[in-house]
Amino acid sequence: MSFKLQILGSGAATPTLKRGVTAQYLNFNERKILIDCGEGTQLKLRKFNISFQRIQYIFISHLHGDHYLGLMGLLSSMHLLGREKPIHIYAPPELKEIFDTQFKLTYVTLKFEIIYHFLDFKEKKMVFEDNLIEVYAFPLKHRIPCYGFLFKEKLKERGMITENIKKFNIKIPEILRLKASKNVTRENREVLNYLEHTTPPSKPKSYAFCTDTKYIDNLHEIVKDVDILYHEATFVHELLSRAKATFHTTAFQAATLAKKANVRKLLLGHFSQRYSSTKDIEKEAKSVFNRTICVKDGDTFIL
Amino acid sequence: MSFKLQILGSGAATPTLKRGVTAQYLNFNERKILIDCGEGTQLKLRKFNISFQRIQYIFISHLHGDHYLGLMGLLSSMHLLGREKPIHIYAPPELKEIFDTQFKLTYVTLKFEIIYHFLDFKEKKMVFEDNLIEVYAFPLKHRIPCYGFLFKEKLKERGMITENIKKFNIKIPEILRLKASKNVTRENREVLNYLEHTTPPSKPKSYAFCTDTKYIDNLHEIVKDVDILYHEATFVHELLSRAKATFHTTAFQAATLAKKANVRKLLLGHFSQRYSSTKDIEKEAKSVFNRTICVKDGDTFIL
Repeated sequence: MSFKLQILGSGAATPTLKRGVTAQYLNFNERKILIDCGEGTQLKLRKFNISFQRIQYIFISHLHGDHYLGLMGLLSSMHLLGREKPIHIYAPPELKEIFDTQFKLTYVTLKFEIIYHFLDFKEKKMVFEDNLIEVYAFPLKHRIPCYGFLFKEKLKERGMITENIKKFNIKIPEILRLKASKNVTRENREVLNYLEHTTPPSKPKSYAFCTDTKYIDNLHEIVKDVDILYHEATFVHELLSRAKATFHTTAFQAATLAKKANVRKLLLGHFSQRYSSTKDIEKEAKSVFNRTICVKDGDTFIL
Repeated sequence: MSFKLQILGSGAATPTLKRGVTAQYLNFNERKILIDCGEGTQLKLRKFNISFQRIQYIFISHLHGDHYLGLMGLLSSMHLLGREKPIHIYAPPELKEIFDTQFKLTYVTLKFEIIYHFLDFKEKKMVFEDNLIEVYAFPLKHRIPCYGFLFKEKLKERGMITENIKKFNIKIPEILRLKASKNVTRENREVLNYLEHTTPPSKPKSYAFCTDTKYIDNLHEIVKDVDILYHEATFVHELLSRAKATFHTTAFQAATLAKKANVRKLLLGHFSQRYSSTKDIEKEAKSVFNRTICVKDGDTFIL
């Protein structure tokens, strides 16, 4: 059971030798997820020894080149290396038309199925759910339609106080009820109160991904209390007017959001290629929210 | 006046950390040319310090991903970095439809013009000509339409024998005639024979690029006597049936062609990723044609 985030690309607009463009690999409770897929992502996966055949779900925030132009190449490599398992792609609907056109005109028929899930709504919406996790997408504010993603572990069962099992002779069906926050009434009318025999569940893990976007005043409501918030900080606050004009966020703004949302940790990325160092960006953000890290390609974080 | 070929990617199908997919930068008499553009080409250009804003002409052999998927990202970076100069793209016509779809659905309007030149013919054809060079495209035999390219310097002027200028008091207009292989008749009926006063021009430079293709029996007629022939050698001859089935060439076959064509030098590339070393490929080819080199990414050749 793993909760691990790996940064594959942390730069904006165009890939450089120092920073790739946006892509992240997320192992969220053993669900293998790729978030965004700028050009060169398949090489970053190779570089960091991540099997791309194991990826099950791909989330594409928006259709600017630095967030999706590596996806056709990745799918093509999956195909050439023998993939047969379907893959789920969560993306703006135009992606399917782009890919269908490309497949048709280049005579490519993939050996595996792409199952598209379109991001085309105006409010936060659950887009994925299984027994252990939930994923929400929510609109950001960029020059073209763009979505953030919130990955949440479901509320877990309570923990059994093990010494009570023997002491009160608690049977397995009773344990299951107690762990699910339900009291047990035995045949002899005896009541086992779940609060006495179990401990509260640990806090579900959560991760939020927000790029590209201008500063959104009430975004803290959606990303409240997450373990890790990844947010773009394309510019320092000195370039606020440039950030506004291009629908991007400054480090100061991202940190303000993190503070309002009370997140455990803030990761900043999507830095303009004009910054050869992130020192000023990090300093600016930390002046507002100290638990901030400016990420580099290859950085790994445990949720 | 430079004639330089730089290999940007030399592997087949999928990029790896060791070999990128097909792309080459050709400075052909100061015409700046990109041939094929697999994913990651813009990073290779950066790595080898080649200014991609200077590229004037892009030739795309065919629309398999490993030969064109890096082009949209390269154009996008040219745009973001402020390019205004038009660019010429020589490619199968489907490329325009793919790009137009992509630009339209992702709301991109480039700041510069793309001038398309469609490769859609069945015979060798001149596709570019200026005062100094000519470029020909010719169909190869692959699973989808695919073209090879022949870059030829035009026949140069003859060289003036300098000591004769003074000796025979040859004037500039006379020099120009003589260098252009024309005799000069002076007012006094004296005839200056160009063969007596000039030396033959040096052999025009030439470069031929042939990938992807199965072995073509009469291809030597097109690439005859070129300085450098770059040809795919996806497999060794032991895998001839695989080469035939996938419309690729073996090292033995490529060397046979080079020998028949009497080229100065044969460069082999587009190696299947199954080969961790090119030792066997080179050995096989050299047994037929000794002036063979298996290229690596970054290799540079002077024509």
